[in-house]
Amino acid sequence: VSGGSDGRITVAAIAREAGVSVPTVSRVLNGRADVAPRTRRRVEELLDRHGYRRASFWKHDPLLDLVFDDLDSPWAVEIIRGVEEVARELELGMVLAAMHGDAGKARNWLRNVRARGTNGVIMVTSFLEPGQQDELLRRDIPTVIVDPAGRPADDVTTIGATNWAGGLTATRHLLELGHRRIGFVAGPERLLCSRARLDGYRAALESAGLGLDPALVIEGDFHHESGFLAAQALLTTPHPPTAVFAASDQMAFGVYEAVRRSGLRVPDDISVVGFDDLPQARWACPPLTTIRQPLTEMGRMAVRTIAQLIRGEPINTPRVELATTLTVRSSTIAPV
Amino acid sequence: VSGGSDGRITVAAIAREAGVSVPTVSRVLNGRADVAPRTRRRVEELLDRHGYRRASFWKHDPLLDLVFDDLDSPWAVEIIRGVEEVARELELGMVLAAMHGDAGKARNWLRNVRARGTNGVIMVTSFLEPGQQDELLRRDIPTVIVDPAGRPADDVTTIGATNWAGGLTATRHLLELGHRRIGFVAGPERLLCSRARLDGYRAALESAGLGLDPALVIEGDFHHESGFLAAQALLTTPHPPTAVFAASDQMAFGVYEAVRRSGLRVPDDISVVGFDDLPQARWACPPLTTIRQPLTEMGRMAVRTIAQLIRGEPINTPRVELATTLTVRSSTIAPV
Repeated sequence: VSGGSDGRITVAAIAREAGVSVPTVSRVLNGRADVAPRTRRRVEELLDRHGYRRASFWKHDPLLDLVFDDLDSPWAVEIIRGVEEVARELELGMVLAAMHGDAGKARNWLRNVRARGTNGVIMVTSFLEPGQQDELLRRDIPTVIVDPAGRPADDVTTIGATNWAGGLTATRHLLELGHRRIGFVAGPERLLCSRARLDGYRAALESAGLGLDPALVIEGDFHHESGFLAAQALLTTPHPPTAVFAASDQMAFGVYEAVRRSGLRVPDDISVVGFDDLPQARWACPPLTTIRQPLTEMGRMAVRTIAQLIRGEPINTPRVELATTLTVRSSTIAPV
Repeated sequence: VSGGSDGRITVAAIAREAGVSVPTVSRVLNGRADVAPRTRRRVEELLDRHGYRRASFWKHDPLLDLVFDDLDSPWAVEIIRGVEEVARELELGMVLAAMHGDAGKARNWLRNVRARGTNGVIMVTSFLEPGQQDELLRRDIPTVIVDPAGRPADDVTTIGATNWAGGLTATRHLLELGHRRIGFVAGPERLLCSRARLDGYRAALESAGLGLDPALVIEGDFHHESGFLAAQALLTTPHPPTAVFAASDQMAFGVYEAVRRSGLRVPDDISVVGFDDLPQARWACPPLTTIRQPLTEMGRMAVRTIAQLIRGEPINTPRVELATTLTVRSSTIAPV
């Protein structure tokens, strides 16, 4: 029987040797009842014989580290909720941390991850420097990156959303309503997701025969204030846009505020599209048209993937992008 | 030198014997630089001689469990942020869990708390049955309850907000504007904080010479939908209120929606006051007048208190209520 690339025996190899499917081996590992007694015995025997490492997963206090860059955004709790839900099912304790963009804190955290014997790490956006990322991998701690910010090492599993398609869809929606001058409040350029959304915006403009006007693109930081300031700048240009696409819901709410303060109205004077579909988008005034990111589902999938990695099961694909979808509410209409 | 009631030596006793203040001993325990070398040596010597148990706090992987009933509310993240901030300063790992009102989950969690050697527990609302609470205390795991839901055991430390005063202030604000028929969307009756807010509402009415009209009080569950349904009921009574006080911001947003759908406007036709002051209250339309709960500060204080309990330091008071304050925005005006 052949092992994984690192010499460890894999669930797939056990399944082959036992002549059963991979899910059957998983069921045995999970102690589920729906496995025939004879099959269970055969699988258990092979797991023991090959010294399959499940002890670390099933000892009494398995831990999962969930790490954010910051906790100051309402979308963090959407991911936390999904992670908590599946972690509880799998009886994994969830350790929550935030790095606040501080390399020293990242070092401390890495030291503690080792000390407490964390079984797996979910990073939301990858704040680690390449060297630190390597250290996690070298220590063989299963790692999944949600919404990768930079280019992760090739062997790191990532779960993202279709940011490019989302940027394209939001912009197309405005183009189809008849808008031609569409402002864009971008996310920070260093983040991959920001660049993908910007490229989607550009692609939609180009396929409509329009070029990107650099005067209409302003970079924000995903928070309210930056959307507010960007919209103030856009509204005071000589030839202001009739619609604004903001790369986060929070920035879209900042745009709302700037529009209000300048005596204009959404959507009568300016249409606005956001990105995220936070719960408060439904309750905003007017309710926000936005691109839905399946944040909670991304959190759920991250834990399921970590559990697979911990058990040594094969991952179908190391790069997953969950679909974004357009939710049309009341902040977008045809230009006057 | 005398120890604590359980025979362990306390920081206060060490301080007495060393002839220094309690904060000085804390600074030594925390490895801070601002202690004179000679003082530090004397304190260190006494700590060693009396076998002061700081090993469990300062070993490499101290953990703190933060437990919610549910994570489905935006106020959870406000508390999480405060806990994370101070936990990071103190290099405590934060384990996050939610019980979802399930006694079996609470049992599992309690088992895991023991297994992973958690150093302290912060419970947000106390979902534990008295027997389970006793078990935590019996195991000598320092515990702090934030926003206590029921009557906690006398020896549990709690951190809450001045809910009664908040209810009083919100209602007084509406009375001062001239409202006389004020609806109240209450929180679940089983929670202490709900009852305190209701009593504050009643006290304000009574001190204005008005009685509580039971037809104007409807119980919700703190979520949007229940505020929406409660407001629909209030608006269709024969003699509807001119203002509504909702015991949570989320329910207040539900009230907004019901008012909008019935063709009326906030605040022109109906004034609305919330409770919490979530970040989105500022960005609601109209911006919401609400009672501010210092949620992040409650989280911060909970960790500081846990750290004191872990170190065996005396707690000034086992019952703390942080002040609530009225934030007036644009959802309240005089009745027409």
